[in-house]
Amino acid sequence: MTLHIGFLVFPRVQQLDLTGPYEIFSLLPSATVHLVWKDREIVTSTTGIGFTPTTTFAECPMLDVLCVPGGIGVNPLMQDAETLAFVRRQAERARFVTSVCTGSLVLGAAGLLEGRRATAHWLARDALAGLGAIPTAGRVVRDGNLITAGGVTAGIDFGLTVVAELAGREAAETIQLHLEYAPAPPFDAGTPETAPPPVVAAVRDRLAGSRAERQAIIAAVGRSPATV
Amino acid sequence: MTLHIGFLVFPRVQQLDLTGPYEIFSLLPSATVHLVWKDREIVTSTTGIGFTPTTTFAECPMLDVLCVPGGIGVNPLMQDAETLAFVRRQAERARFVTSVCTGSLVLGAAGLLEGRRATAHWLARDALAGLGAIPTAGRVVRDGNLITAGGVTAGIDFGLTVVAELAGREAAETIQLHLEYAPAPPFDAGTPETAPPPVVAAVRDRLAGSRAERQAIIAAVGRSPATV
Repeated sequence: MTLHIGFLVFPRVQQLDLTGPYEIFSLLPSATVHLVWKDREIVTSTTGIGFTPTTTFAECPMLDVLCVPGGIGVNPLMQDAETLAFVRRQAERARFVTSVCTGSLVLGAAGLLEGRRATAHWLARDALAGLGAIPTAGRVVRDGNLITAGGVTAGIDFGLTVVAELAGREAAETIQLHLEYAPAPPFDAGTPETAPPPVVAAVRDRLAGSRAERQAIIAAVGRSPATV
Repeated sequence: MTLHIGFLVFPRVQQLDLTGPYEIFSLLPSATVHLVWKDREIVTSTTGIGFTPTTTFAECPMLDVLCVPGGIGVNPLMQDAETLAFVRRQAERARFVTSVCTGSLVLGAAGLLEGRRATAHWLARDALAGLGAIPTAGRVVRDGNLITAGGVTAGIDFGLTVVAELAGREAAETIQLHLEYAPAPPFDAGTPETAPPPVVAAVRDRLAGSRAERQAIIAAVGRSPATV
């Protein structure tokens, strides 16, 4: 039986949030991976690489796994009724409802995180509280059928975790070896706890604009949670 | 001054070989990242995701960094005179000549690895000897201005290594933290030494076809190395 795995794509999606787990799911023989958006026009990611949706909200089959990646483009989605309705509709029946990075904010805006443990990029995790979630530190955080991943590259650890759930540990290990995933970062700056303070300050500075925009949107949507 | 970083794109490129380091280089403020192919028609990667070239062999500026990703599509490239001529022309002046995964085989077929230490995906590393290189185990292997990475996900460690060379350690650490790259693989199967034997057998089996095809091509081009 084919497993249908669908990524929400949208303008200014963070490219690697999507392409990391997409690569992993594509190597699962039983899976068909979809890129879903309102229409089939190419959407441009944060890096400039474009993605062509393979299906639309209207035509997308019921998904076994719904995955919402993050990126600066998440901000308008949190107030986009059409997107939130699609996410809610798929989440009702999906075996796993998932996100990478700030994608969890879209799940929250759709009313799917009420009282549930979830994570996000380290600079966005606190914002989950404004959407009813219990912000939880972790590279991959599971609460029932909800699986959320931390920032960007956490999507790779997440992808292997989900494959193990869907098809067993050996299937996940086979993909891990195929992709030679034995990471060896040249530096130890991947978390705010381990990075030098000037590096933490530089990232906070770079992302200050999107963070402020996000907080304003959550203050607005948090007052009228879209849980209907 | 703008740094020009160019990825060769081609049909059946391994998607994450390219998208991992592409994400990293895109976050380097001083860099412009190019996708280079013979024409500007969309090319389809191994996963089905398409890439639209941003420039062509004829129009590409001289690159500071040339990067050749891998994938099954590498096999025909090893015998493609137009591609090999482009690679040689850029390599003459590039500050760094680089590859991810089986991309190093294209550098070898272009005559650029003679007597030099280089690496590739663990299942392709031995093939480098047939192209004059000294096959070398390692996630990121450097020999002078030649920087080659191991299989697929090694491209992320590679990307950070190259950014540190181009712009300093703090620039690389800033990107690492932005991407929350503190990997935590759920399993320890990323190398043939650590993976369970049935997993190693499964990957060998999956990749047997492309490996046989590769070996036949290298036996042919190895007899007439394209070093002119």
